[in-house]
Amino acid sequence: MAPTKHKALINVDMGEAYGNYTCGPDRELLPMIDHANIACGFHAGDPLIMAETVSLCKAHNVKIGAHPGLPDIQGFGRREMKLSPEEHTANVVYQIGALKGFLDRAGVELHHVKPHGVLYGMMVRDVEVARAVWAAVPRGMRVFGLAGTHMETAAKEAGLEFWAEYYGDVKYRVDGTLIVDRKKQPWEVEEVKRHVGRQLRESKVLAVTGEEVDLPVKEYPVTVCCHSDSPGCVEIVRATREVVNGFNAERGL
Amino acid sequence: MAPTKHKALINVDMGEAYGNYTCGPDRELLPMIDHANIACGFHAGDPLIMAETVSLCKAHNVKIGAHPGLPDIQGFGRREMKLSPEEHTANVVYQIGALKGFLDRAGVELHHVKPHGVLYGMMVRDVEVARAVWAAVPRGMRVFGLAGTHMETAAKEAGLEFWAEYYGDVKYRVDGTLIVDRKKQPWEVEEVKRHVGRQLRESKVLAVTGEEVDLPVKEYPVTVCCHSDSPGCVEIVRATREVVNGFNAERGL
Amino acid sequence: MAPTKHKALINVDMGEAYGNYTCGPDRELLPMIDHANIACGFHAGDPLIMAETVSLCKAHNVKIGAHPGLPDIQGFGRREMKLSPEEHTANVVYQIGALKGFLDRAGVELHHVKPHGVLYGMMVRDVEVARAVWAAVPRGMRVFGLAGTHMETAAKEAGLEFWAEYYGDVKYRVDGTLIVDRKKQPWEVEEVKRHVGRQLRESKVLAVTGEEVDLPVKEYPVTVCCHSDSPGCVEIVRATREVVNGFNAERGL
Amino acid sequence: MAPTKHKALINVDMGEAYGNYTCGPDRELLPMIDHANIACGFHAGDPLIMAETVSLCKAHNVKIGAHPGLPDIQGFGRREMKLSPEEHTANVVYQIGALKGFLDRAGVELHHVKPHGVLYGMMVRDVEVARAVWAAVPRGMRVFGLAGTHMETAAKEAGLEFWAEYYGDVKYRVDGTLIVDRKKQPWEVEEVKRHVGRQLRESKVLAVTGEEVDLPVKEYPVTVCCHSDSPGCVEIVRATREVVNGFNAERGL
Repeated sequence: MAPTKHKALINVDMGEAYGNYTCGPDRELLPMIDHANIACGFHAGDPLIMAETVSLCKAHNVKIGAHPGLPDIQGFGRREMKLSPEEHTANVVYQIGALKGFLDRAGVELHHVKPHGVLYGMMVRDVEVARAVWAAVPRGMRVFGLAGTHMETAAKEAGLEFWAEYYGDVKYRVDGTLIVDRKKQPWEVEEVKRHVGRQLRESKVLAVTGEEVDLPVKEYPVTVCCHSDSPGCVEIVRATREVVNGFNAERGL
Repeated sequence: MAPTKHKALINVDMGEAYGNYTCGPDRELLPMIDHANIACGFHAGDPLIMAETVSLCKAHNVKIGAHPGLPDIQGFGRREMKLSPEEHTANVVYQIGALKGFLDRAGVELHHVKPHGVLYGMMVRDVEVARAVWAAVPRGMRVFGLAGTHMETAAKEAGLEFWAEYYGDVKYRVDGTLIVDRKKQPWEVEEVKRHVGRQLRESKVLAVTGEEVDLPVKEYPVTVCCHSDSPGCVEIVRATREVVNGFNAERGL
Repeated sequence: MAPTKHKALINVDMGEAYGNYTCGPDRELLPMIDHANIACGFHAGDPLIMAETVSLCKAHNVKIGAHPGLPDIQGFGRREMKLSPEEHTANVVYQIGALKGFLDRAGVELHHVKPHGVLYGMMVRDVEVARAVWAAVPRGMRVFGLAGTHMETAAKEAGLEFWAEYYGDVKYRVDGTLIVDRKKQPWEVEEVKRHVGRQLRESKVLAVTGEEVDLPVKEYPVTVCCHSDSPGCVEIVRATREVVNGFNAERGL
Repeated sequence: MAPTKHKALINVDMGEAYGNYTCGPDRELLPMIDHANIACGFHAGDPLIMAETVSLCKAHNVKIGAHPGLPDIQGFGRREMKLSPEEHTANVVYQIGALKGFLDRAGVELHHVKPHGVLYGMMVRDVEVARAVWAAVPRGMRVFGLAGTHMETAAKEAGLEFWAEYYGDVKYRVDGTLIVDRKKQPWEVEEVKRHVGRQLRESKVLAVTGEEVDLPVKEYPVTVCCHSDSPGCVEIVRATREVVNGFNAERGL
């Protein structure tokens, strides 16, 4: 069952440059999105980039979430690392705190927390990791994740407000989990539209192996995630925006 | 003129371990000190160590300051790096924010900010660096630094509450600046006592080259700094405590 | 069946300090050992420490092996990371090359290659990792590893000379694999002697769960590994030396 | 006096990507250049990128130099860091050794060593740094640097073969030293041609402040450096190639 009372929204990972290295076209994407997940310096981003990205988001009136990742810039937070639960918690406390330093100066509220990359995937699969990460988030905070997985159950245990994500530019396995590639692959715009439309309207998705998969998204705000490091991300986000707007309009949202 | 209205205090850098690598005997030092400057992960410390150090300080009722450093664990924040003012500001916002993440969870206030190592030395010598670092600190916050230098003038410009430091285990140049060695050298306990006593009672110090140097400390709280990575630091801090207690007792503080 | 034709030897991980952070008492251990495995800057060590450790080993006439690890100083190479085979190979080529830079200047030969920590454990369990790591080692080179595992079969596939290791200060699981803790635990000296003696004389070990386990070491040189970061490592290595010397003497080696 | 007996050549910094982050269009540049300076993982590059870049250069028959930098990926080796001479030497030994690991596997010779970014600038200005870096290079090796500076005198002291560089995309100060920006600025193609032509034909350059400056290049091979991270670098290198080819043709080289 797809959600109906809440407007569907779009979130994009942002501020994933590092030093002189650039990442996505954040300035082009900002006018098209609702929420930015700002990298916190562990998998990408650095203090200067965080400062700039917070300013940019504020200027575009885009709400800001913390986007904590594994401590691995070389692997862009997409290489699995086995950390203890205490390390996961401490790493996420640290990253959210660091981002809040910039938000406090800008007079902007932290809107949500969304884990990055393989850390997200580990939370989906492993309830201990899910608990350890969410243990770092203040009670009552909004968190984004994959519905029907440990991300959701552990978030509720921890007293967090869970928002379900669909994905504009990520493929799913037949078990409903996401395939996190080290480097993002290109997408056809029409495929993005079908992919997003099916998720929003039917809460279903085609797995990479061809099967139709039910996504157990319940009645709460949903937000469609796209990545600023996907090749052609401007077109992907534009296509996603179109589908999301259509979906909201149909429902008078 | 040495200060007279305020009790002299002791601050020590803490939480400067990293991963499996240990640094000072924090647990032995905590019962003897007033303030801990906690490393924030740039020159030393990591999220797990920060979490533990905040807990330890809270248990010992030791007030906590942020201890931001240059981004250089290999050099322990003691290798000069030329950063832009914007980088300095962003780095310090990030580090204070990260520490506040742990303080907020522990329900402990941030007491002060004290820059680490060569960053401190660069602030003493270069007003641009001093301004860039203090620009990261919320107005009204206490900051520790070297009196009569750019650290003090820039702190006041920035609306910060400046506390002067003396040093228990650092030598001075004839111009009143500190000699920051990459690795701390051992001290004789009696030399520490003379060194601290002369600073507290006369606001003077003997330079490494033998001259008596006036330290321009004015009428505000002073705090004597010792380092947890100095060889024999337990004895150094104990000796400093003894002199500080004697000084306070003489003045009925 | 324990080996009989070759003298048993002792290898120790060395040069595992980092910047100002110290690790083991390398200078005390060197007179007691045959081979040093020198950290190459990925899990520990840095260029200056590598230069110094090569000099120390040369002065003590201790043969030098490369000790490549995962790229994770914070985790001391003891946090599992999922890398691609190409990354493993490239990482090990890089680390061996870096060490050879120092060996060439010192006019010392590279004696062997021994992977560190969790990378070693991953090679034991996963033939793909074993192949990827050994693919980085020039044909004909000696490599140290755990006999009867993928480390041995992949080494032979790759045309490498395999030497089996026993362990002085590491416990075994009932399946004959090693338990790699993040931080080394203390050992009783008498337990070390029994542990090493049983391995050398019977090629058996008591698992942590109490069972007697056969270690499939065949007829080739064996070398007993101890760690310079174990608490009490000087006593552990001295005890191991005693047992190894006794074993060699009994066999006229 | 411009050199006349040797063909002028072109060198470009290559392999300066990092993890998922890309840098220059190395594949487009390789057909136009003579020498690649391959980043060695300290200021840019990582083992996988080094392996790939060595293969690419070999396929294009481009000679390979080591391009060691300061240990600062975030700053791209363009933030000055004060290291001890021993650290500089060890860092460069390490980086050259690491690159040689890949060259040995590919069966390719190391052609030269060229320091990167601010390290290069520090060698120009500070003879101690120049000596410390060149001390890491095997006697007799070719090294690239700025003629008439400490780079040249220290190279000769160290028994190295010095090749002078001109610059296609870097501006000069009136004292003949280079202005190393953190991020490269765009160039007009015609300006590049004039800049390179004046250097090659007259051994002169216009300083940013407008003065004509003599470059003290003597009679030895000269090589014109361009950067793969300059905006428009394909056009810059193409323009440089044109001028270099014209210069060589005029002299029958």
